[in-house]
Amino acid sequence: MAKVAVLGHGVVGSGVVELFEKNRNSIEAKAGQPMEVKYILDIRDFPDLPYSDKFTKDFNQILNDEEVSVVAEVMGGLSPAFEYVKSLLEKGKSVVTSNKELVAAKGAELLRIAREHNVNFFFEASVGGGIPIIRPMHQCLAANQISEVAGILNGTTNFILTKMIQEQMDFDEALELAQQLGYAERNPAADVEGQDTCRKICILASLAYGKHVYPNNVYTEGITNLTLEDVAYAEDWGGVIKLIGRAKRLDEGKLTVTVFPAFIGKHSQLANIDDVFNGILIRGDATGDVVFYGRGAGKFPTASAVVADMIDAAKANTTSKSLNWEDSTENQVADYRTIAYPFYLRIRSDNPEQLEKKIHAAMLDSVFLSRRQQPQEELAVVTPAMDDYQLEKVLKEVLDNNDSILGKIRVLDY
Amino acid sequence: MAKVAVLGHGVVGSGVVELFEKNRNSIEAKAGQPMEVKYILDIRDFPDLPYSDKFTKDFNQILNDEEVSVVAEVMGGLSPAFEYVKSLLEKGKSVVTSNKELVAAKGAELLRIAREHNVNFFFEASVGGGIPIIRPMHQCLAANQISEVAGILNGTTNFILTKMIQEQMDFDEALELAQQLGYAERNPAADVEGQDTCRKICILASLAYGKHVYPNNVYTEGITNLTLEDVAYAEDWGGVIKLIGRAKRLDEGKLTVTVFPAFIGKHSQLANIDDVFNGILIRGDATGDVVFYGRGAGKFPTASAVVADMIDAAKANTTSKSLNWEDSTENQVADYRTIAYPFYLRIRSDNPEQLEKKIHAAMLDSVFLSRRQQPQEELAVVTPAMDDYQLEKVLKEVLDNNDSILGKIRVLDY
Repeated sequence: MAKVAVLGHGVVGSGVVELFEKNRNSIEAKAGQPMEVKYILDIRDFPDLPYSDKFTKDFNQILNDEEVSVVAEVMGGLSPAFEYVKSLLEKGKSVVTSNKELVAAKGAELLRIAREHNVNFFFEASVGGGIPIIRPMHQCLAANQISEVAGILNGTTNFILTKMIQEQMDFDEALELAQQLGYAERNPAADVEGQDTCRKICILASLAYGKHVYPNNVYTEGITNLTLEDVAYAEDWGGVIKLIGRAKRLDEGKLTVTVFPAFIGKHSQLANIDDVFNGILIRGDATGDVVFYGRGAGKFPTASAVVADMIDAAKANTTSKSLNWEDSTENQVADYRTIAYPFYLRIRSDNPEQLEKKIHAAMLDSVFLSRRQQPQEELAVVTPAMDDYQLEKVLKEVLDNNDSILGKIRVLDY
Repeated sequence: MAKVAVLGHGVVGSGVVELFEKNRNSIEAKAGQPMEVKYILDIRDFPDLPYSDKFTKDFNQILNDEEVSVVAEVMGGLSPAFEYVKSLLEKGKSVVTSNKELVAAKGAELLRIAREHNVNFFFEASVGGGIPIIRPMHQCLAANQISEVAGILNGTTNFILTKMIQEQMDFDEALELAQQLGYAERNPAADVEGQDTCRKICILASLAYGKHVYPNNVYTEGITNLTLEDVAYAEDWGGVIKLIGRAKRLDEGKLTVTVFPAFIGKHSQLANIDDVFNGILIRGDATGDVVFYGRGAGKFPTASAVVADMIDAAKANTTSKSLNWEDSTENQVADYRTIAYPFYLRIRSDNPEQLEKKIHAAMLDSVFLSRRQQPQEELAVVTPAMDDYQLEKVLKEVLDNNDSILGKIRVLDY
């Protein structure tokens, strides 16, 4: 018999408890033992639920109950989640979490504490909601060297981009619709400015490379500056704009880990992942490309990943050897400005014809784009691959004082 | 230290040994212990390999060596693979296999023997090549009731269909190209007649529902009768033809498990899975749809799944509780003729106009299709959903003696 506790009774927390009730038979069959939710921690009162007797406001009651062997942390935020998880692991309880902020900021430390106490710290739900991704990466792909991970990791921004692409809504309008539908929070900054994607790619990168990648080492660019003009040029180029979190092994042993909106070709497996769906591409030396697709958020998708982790934690009698990484080493993440990409540039110019000639002379393989209703003073181009420093230098050469860059988006090749 | 053996040194077997050499460090790190290939069983001689000293022609040498704890069976075929695997499990060795024929025919029995001897029988590589699918299904989706599994499970037929759809090659021409490229065997029957897909959907269905589904209970239709006319009508309808293996839970506790080419809409997540790629959709009550995509065959993708299983088998100290199913019960698979689908029908008729009127009267919601260069004596229609018996009855009503059915394909809604 495994007695478990759930910290937080918000959207995911209530989903976890409800799934336990609904699929109890199959859960216990997979766990090989009875499982029971003994406590639910929340500061609020929930007097009218069938399981109202399980609520407590006292974290120490859970911490000090030796019957409790597995705890799900689904409160979110760094504090007190971090302190709670740390003390639970130190007490010899396994912890599973959906809290990407916690894992991205404190993963290496919590994994080390779990190892030291021979328990587990699992976080399948922290990336990709109900899509199995953490476990397939560390387990099924164990025989691979992973060269690259790239994904559409945030459903809110993908919904907004889909509306911009398919229905020509502008960013503000699409954001408002996302808020109305409950896909975006009232304060959408963490989504639209890319931090949520950043946390998730940090977790995937840490797992793929065995060393913790911290969010403040990751160049992160959101989607707030994208316009319908950019979307139209992307279509003319033959693709779409998606917000991509990406981690790639470089030749010299370093990594590049980035979050930015990118042009991707319409035949890419990531191009057709629309609305609130997430998609994650793993490039292994043996498997080639493997793509995982599904709902990246939501009550039951996320809760099902949490419950699956709870089952695994209940079954385990030792710390997972493979779901683990060390703390970061200095300078493991390369300066993003030294990585070469083709750039899409949209430029306002008094003399776009002359500018086109100058760009052509400076970068022979540039591809010029056009769209319906293009203003006369506008030029759009996709450059050959170059890094930020090279781009800066070329732009200094070709731009006049009156020219201004209206859009700048990297191009990824998947 | 885990000493392992590999039965068979064909494409997959040599890939397994090579991966062990290439990624030894990460493999041993994930396994938490050194791992060494001690034997390779093959009736042929391989004198010039760096690991030629590991070969043996004597299965009993492996069977009776107590140092060997994990064996990979990658010979294929039912015999002697079944006898070998059975005796290895009975000797207390874990076995992993890529052999879908073996798992589809003998899975329940071998899983039972593994349980009885407290070892494991793993087969991630038997479905989807390098795509992690077996383990995510039984582990990460443990908290879900799986209502449906559907997939493009055979790369050879998907390659042929892709060439028919994108390049208007006819079936024979596309098959020949597939053979030239090494994607299809000289005798392509197991692929093009659907048996390979059938074995794989049997494995997925058995795992999803906990009871063995045997190939002879699965209605299996291949792609050999498909024509470019059918492909063109599918496009007119707004989709493509794909060979889909499918298992679905029915209301009355039964299953439908089928393999047939189907019309699927072009926005389906399975519609864009082209060439030799595989894609598998899992529909769970909590997760919603989750799709896995990647290379479904090939030396290293398949070998990487085998090696990952070997790592897991080396780490395990007890039989997996969740990767398991019971033997089948009678009548668990429903008669496929009682399941309703919309049908695409292509009919030759002396009087197609009159036929259209009769079909319209008999089935109000029928959708008539047209294509460029449609012969005057041809009519194509997508009917409302009906089962085979209803369809037979309607066709008896509306068809004249001279009318003949040139094409009949079910429509799936993903």
